[in-house]
Amino acid sequence: MTVTKALGFRSAGIAAGIKDNDALDLALVVNDGPQYVAAGRFTSNRVQAAPVMWSRQVLAAAKVRAVVLNSGGANACTGPEGFADTHRTAESVAANLSCSAAEVAVCSTGLIGERLPIEALLNAIPEAVSMLGTDDDRAAAQAIMTTDSVPKHTSRTTSGWTIGGMAKGAGMLAPGLATMLVVITTDALIDSAIAEEALGHACRHTFDRLDSDGSMSTNDTVLLLASGAAGIEVDVETFTSELTAVCHDLGMQMLADAEGSTKDIAITVTGAASEDDAVEVARCVARDNLVKTALYGSDPNWGRIVAAIGTSQAKFEPDRIDVTINGVQICRNTAAAANRSLVDLTSRAVDITIELNAGDDCATVWTNDLSHAYVEENSAYSS
Amino acid sequence: MTVTKALGFRSAGIAAGIKDNDALDLALVVNDGPQYVAAGRFTSNRVQAAPVMWSRQVLAAAKVRAVVLNSGGANACTGPEGFADTHRTAESVAANLSCSAAEVAVCSTGLIGERLPIEALLNAIPEAVSMLGTDDDRAAAQAIMTTDSVPKHTSRTTSGWTIGGMAKGAGMLAPGLATMLVVITTDALIDSAIAEEALGHACRHTFDRLDSDGSMSTNDTVLLLASGAAGIEVDVETFTSELTAVCHDLGMQMLADAEGSTKDIAITVTGAASEDDAVEVARCVARDNLVKTALYGSDPNWGRIVAAIGTSQAKFEPDRIDVTINGVQICRNTAAAANRSLVDLTSRAVDITIELNAGDDCATVWTNDLSHAYVEENSAYSS
Repeated sequence: MTVTKALGFRSAGIAAGIKDNDALDLALVVNDGPQYVAAGRFTSNRVQAAPVMWSRQVLAAAKVRAVVLNSGGANACTGPEGFADTHRTAESVAANLSCSAAEVAVCSTGLIGERLPIEALLNAIPEAVSMLGTDDDRAAAQAIMTTDSVPKHTSRTTSGWTIGGMAKGAGMLAPGLATMLVVITTDALIDSAIAEEALGHACRHTFDRLDSDGSMSTNDTVLLLASGAAGIEVDVETFTSELTAVCHDLGMQMLADAEGSTKDIAITVTGAASEDDAVEVARCVARDNLVKTALYGSDPNWGRIVAAIGTSQAKFEPDRIDVTINGVQICRNTAAAANRSLVDLTSRAVDITIELNAGDDCATVWTNDLSHAYVEENSAYSS
Repeated sequence: MTVTKALGFRSAGIAAGIKDNDALDLALVVNDGPQYVAAGRFTSNRVQAAPVMWSRQVLAAAKVRAVVLNSGGANACTGPEGFADTHRTAESVAANLSCSAAEVAVCSTGLIGERLPIEALLNAIPEAVSMLGTDDDRAAAQAIMTTDSVPKHTSRTTSGWTIGGMAKGAGMLAPGLATMLVVITTDALIDSAIAEEALGHACRHTFDRLDSDGSMSTNDTVLLLASGAAGIEVDVETFTSELTAVCHDLGMQMLADAEGSTKDIAITVTGAASEDDAVEVARCVARDNLVKTALYGSDPNWGRIVAAIGTSQAKFEPDRIDVTINGVQICRNTAAAANRSLVDLTSRAVDITIELNAGDDCATVWTNDLSHAYVEENSAYSS
């Protein structure tokens, strides 16, 4: 169990006919209380899907009774009509649950620029509500998949309270705030201030540092719902720590399932003058196509890494960069050190550590390689 | 004839044994005067190759007698020893030409992070000097090729004076200032102020807007040498116009030869609040891997284009974007307009026009698609 492992939540995942192939495509997560605390993070892309615009308004009140999610269409760049579709979806869910539409968040994912088959979606909502339960919440995780090859979910239980979550995301993984659709539920007794602070911290250190392909979605949404049903008060430090672990787990699942990838690459920048500098340098390297293709070819090409670092504005001396790949310091003071043949790049996990020798801060950004399969999937799949 | 079509120049291209395969790898371009006016532009990458550091110093005096260029090694990230190699190269050329090393610019291209076979290079310089002539300057253009499939050169003659140029560049084509090695010669009678102003304008509107793969080289250099041998004074407007045409021609040759590319894509942003805004938006689209893979698949996926635009900081209203691909307005007011099946993407040339409806400025950035062959070439070739 994932989103329903925490007490106070029910979920459903059904086939509403939004996708062509009878696949699950509509998910519902309902908070039965007693509390309805919520926090959310959304894409920082300035072009935002209708459900993002809607859910931002819902989250402003920090109270969410239900989240309805669909795959098979992003409802992005669909004009006022697309926003009306989202509005009608929330109203229909609210009517079926006897709550207010202003308490219903909406998430969509799929092709940008096309209207949803809204009648099919609305017609399926009563069925989704009738299917709500705590037994099979993997159906909900499956219903939000697009190019994902596996559903993504996790949970942690500590001292009598639980956090669980589900996620979808396999492409367009470059964050402004979030990178994907994620719903996290908890039965901890927390207020909205704790929810807000914890989610901000967790996103900043996990989803915001996942940059698979440099492309930013119009639909990214991360929602945290807290029912308080466990009746256990949790302080902000403890809750933040557990929530960050859940988000990290979901983020690594997305990394491992990224479109066409053959490598999971952790780029850690140390010795930075600030954490922001460390993130900037790591992201420059993560987004460089020549670095990504080299790693696909299992080539420890530190020259391309250093060239990518040189495009950043972070504080460092250009002749003081060290690069270590999978434990072998292959570059010292921006010149060749250990022989590149010593670097073993046969496994999926790749660790790149960049020492800037400019301070004491550090950060890690996770990315993937750029493979034939990525090109194949994204030249053939209209998403 | 290219760099020697203008009066007052000789060139040579020989095999010095820097490359393994007996290919031409050392080029020399000499200005015989009577003037030795020069201007240069270099990569804005903060990690700069030894020859870039050297040539910046040479160009500070705006006087260049000769340029020596090698392929087969970038001499980047090679520490003080690499800088000494460049220095010795310039001194050797100067000794053979009876000029000062401070008048000899050096350019290198190839793998980052490895020392040049400097003895082989130095031993070959007398031969290069002995081969100097005006008959076969294509050998010089060939000697600077790396992954280029064809040598790149052009020339224009107007009213008794000439500009000619040669270039290499097929990967790491994303400019800070330049994107490649380029040597341009002219016999026009111009002073260094005209050379400087004209080269700045020309680079800004051509090489700076060529962004094949988003990766920025450590070695980019563009040099303009003026001999004054035609004895014809040329005003700054006329010279700038002709020089820009030469740079545009060379830039389009690099675009057409970009590694693994199947499309030459011109992204024109109109209705921008400023020219900088137009360039920023065009570059965001040019660098987006999902846009590039879609175009490789001949998919007019305007949703990915709009999502990329949304990551820019330019001034625009997110619901006022229009996108036209090859003459078909496929998106109006950030929503679907003409049917995507109307867009013909079968030819190599692709025109994308983005109207921001935010002002009167415009700019074009040129890029390529992201193909299987790009991945193949850059995962197999250590450059």
